[in-house]
Amino acid sequence: MTSLQDQITGLGKRARAASRLLAQAGADAKNNALRKMADQLSADEKEILDANRKDVEKASADGLSKAAIDRLTLDPKRLKKMADEIRAVAGLADPVGKVLAEWTRPNGLRITKVRVPIGVVGIIYESRPNVTSDAAVLCAKTGNATILRGGSESIHSNLAIAAALQRGAVAGGLPADGILLVPTTDREAVKLMAGMDKYIDLIIPRGGHALIETVVQHARMPVIKHFHGVCIAYVDKDADLAMAQSIVLNGKTQRPGVCNALETVLVHRDAAPAFFEKTAPALFEKGVELRGDPEVIRLAGNKVKPATEADWTTEYLDLILAARVVESFEDAVEHIETHGSHHSDCIITGNAETAERFFAEVDSATVYWNASTRFTDGAEFGFGAEIGISTDKLHARGPMALEELTSYKYLIRGSGQIRE
Amino acid sequence: MTSLQDQITGLGKRARAASRLLAQAGADAKNNALRKMADQLSADEKEILDANRKDVEKASADGLSKAAIDRLTLDPKRLKKMADEIRAVAGLADPVGKVLAEWTRPNGLRITKVRVPIGVVGIIYESRPNVTSDAAVLCAKTGNATILRGGSESIHSNLAIAAALQRGAVAGGLPADGILLVPTTDREAVKLMAGMDKYIDLIIPRGGHALIETVVQHARMPVIKHFHGVCIAYVDKDADLAMAQSIVLNGKTQRPGVCNALETVLVHRDAAPAFFEKTAPALFEKGVELRGDPEVIRLAGNKVKPATEADWTTEYLDLILAARVVESFEDAVEHIETHGSHHSDCIITGNAETAERFFAEVDSATVYWNASTRFTDGAEFGFGAEIGISTDKLHARGPMALEELTSYKYLIRGSGQIRE
Repeated sequence: MTSLQDQITGLGKRARAASRLLAQAGADAKNNALRKMADQLSADEKEILDANRKDVEKASADGLSKAAIDRLTLDPKRLKKMADEIRAVAGLADPVGKVLAEWTRPNGLRITKVRVPIGVVGIIYESRPNVTSDAAVLCAKTGNATILRGGSESIHSNLAIAAALQRGAVAGGLPADGILLVPTTDREAVKLMAGMDKYIDLIIPRGGHALIETVVQHARMPVIKHFHGVCIAYVDKDADLAMAQSIVLNGKTQRPGVCNALETVLVHRDAAPAFFEKTAPALFEKGVELRGDPEVIRLAGNKVKPATEADWTTEYLDLILAARVVESFEDAVEHIETHGSHHSDCIITGNAETAERFFAEVDSATVYWNASTRFTDGAEFGFGAEIGISTDKLHARGPMALEELTSYKYLIRGSGQIRE
Repeated sequence: MTSLQDQITGLGKRARAASRLLAQAGADAKNNALRKMADQLSADEKEILDANRKDVEKASADGLSKAAIDRLTLDPKRLKKMADEIRAVAGLADPVGKVLAEWTRPNGLRITKVRVPIGVVGIIYESRPNVTSDAAVLCAKTGNATILRGGSESIHSNLAIAAALQRGAVAGGLPADGILLVPTTDREAVKLMAGMDKYIDLIIPRGGHALIETVVQHARMPVIKHFHGVCIAYVDKDADLAMAQSIVLNGKTQRPGVCNALETVLVHRDAAPAFFEKTAPALFEKGVELRGDPEVIRLAGNKVKPATEADWTTEYLDLILAARVVESFEDAVEHIETHGSHHSDCIITGNAETAERFFAEVDSATVYWNASTRFTDGAEFGFGAEIGISTDKLHARGPMALEELTSYKYLIRGSGQIRE
């Protein structure tokens, strides 16, 4: 019996070897393999749903919430959707090989900057089993090998999905080791992966605070965090208040459990009375709990709970909205820069000059003028696919799709040039 | 007296505050301040040279090598060169604010991807005091605040240079805290910086193995390593052998102490007899020690020392060259991928098809066909400036200049769009 360390190192070596083959695969070969992966998911429907049933039964026995069990559960329709999404990725343009820049130096050297795969990408996630397919497919499309580490609650589903994808990849002529799933739920495996910079070029953790903290603390290779969003809307004194209400309601209630949902609304003093008069009842009607500063309570009534300092930095992921009256544009920006998470923030104003200042002064991955923060999403950006939303500033920021799963190299063509 | 922890945290907070102001500074304001920084270096010549003398005296007393003392020593000419380089950077285009992409979605949302500063950049280095100026200047140009941590042997010089640059920046209207130098040589400061992801967005370590290992082990934020180069040249069977000799001699002897110098030469069996017949004596003539496999010893004679496994992965930074005869192109690529450092590697061949295969299969930051690896350098690439050479694959790979010191954000202009 091999140790966990040996097991994880073995995965790393296999992925590294596969990544060299994958980097040489052309777009047609990769797309053909992706279609075979989609076909195999359908062909293996019975095995996958049987495996999923084990996970669901365990989740029920363990008393997981109805919402959590729903996220975990697969059925023929969800599996077909997964396969369709793979076929859609096969239809996207391949970023690998694209020439990003090209120039000739006075000494005649011709320099070409060209997109290449990153190599081996480790993806550590907690959530739904479809992430296994999404992550593996986007990595295969971009010529990266991937080592996947899913949540323990979906281990049987993940193993069955990864096995089907592997079979499809091999049928399409790609190396089997391009898609590897850590077959153990031992938490130590995450730390071992994070330490393996010899074999993993990038780790993407998608999940809660504890998971991300473990990865950040142990990682020796680059990490692109897909962390939380404390998204903030600022209703300016020059806002169209009907539009502001629509955007705030949409941001908070359309899907409260996601990272681009709204968590705080700031309202300029001049706009506050009229805004809260109409919008507070509309929020209450949708079941939203408001937590406000004293001024919000004065304007919107006693149904508003008093906000504490912690409310300004909390990602509720629930029907709760923090609300504050601000004295000025400057105070709004100061609040956003101090308390926000630099994910997605929004101004509602009819004043173009104010909006441009907001664009310049708010340092977030996505900054909105008169639109809902809910649009921070690869599909909504038109990227056709999304591995997640980076909350980091290096390499990838905001929605992360195919291009963000690539690196580049410089090719230099000479005729014997040497340096004097 | 404050603790070291408080001291470093204080620097972080000040840099973070300054970074918000710097991000708002326009190109003209930044360039004006850069010119004032250059002027101040000249105005403070006496203070800087006095401070430098203290470092040089200590270095002599400590018995540092002549080469090390030379690298440390400043004089009016070197100081003028430093100031001239700042003026050159002031003349470069500002990457900040550049629109990288712009498109409109079917729902009318207008998405603009625009370059922004990274924020706060920590730079940890060991070498010459001019790095203090280079790093501070490139960060100021790109609107980043910087926290500098130089080597203990140049602490007085670094403090004097940073003080002059700060004074210049302030005279030009930039915040004083945009350029901060850690005023202590306590090694613990590096670990504290590495843990301060709240205030530092990126750390760039430039130096030897021990320094880089400390940063990688403790860093919670992204790290872009400027690590070693085990650069390899492959002399193909279809090589012009005179060109091969010229490139190998240049790569090894023109400046052996730098990361883009050549460390290993691989020669195809068919080319090996003729190559070593002429090139081995030429290398010996330049004082190069050859360490070869048995075949190289057979061809180039007993002056060649036997190479051990360690020689294939050693960055000599000295007049030593490892040499190996390979059976095939495939063996050469396998050697490069297994033993190289993915920094700069080169093929010498007259066969374009072979060269293209080399470009495709060698995964290095810079891959050369018929040119010396010594060209891996920001100035030689035409970048006008260089913060160093990244040996990482994420965010920045190879020569790292102004663009690589930026991030981006998405600005989204709407007219009330909400998500259905």
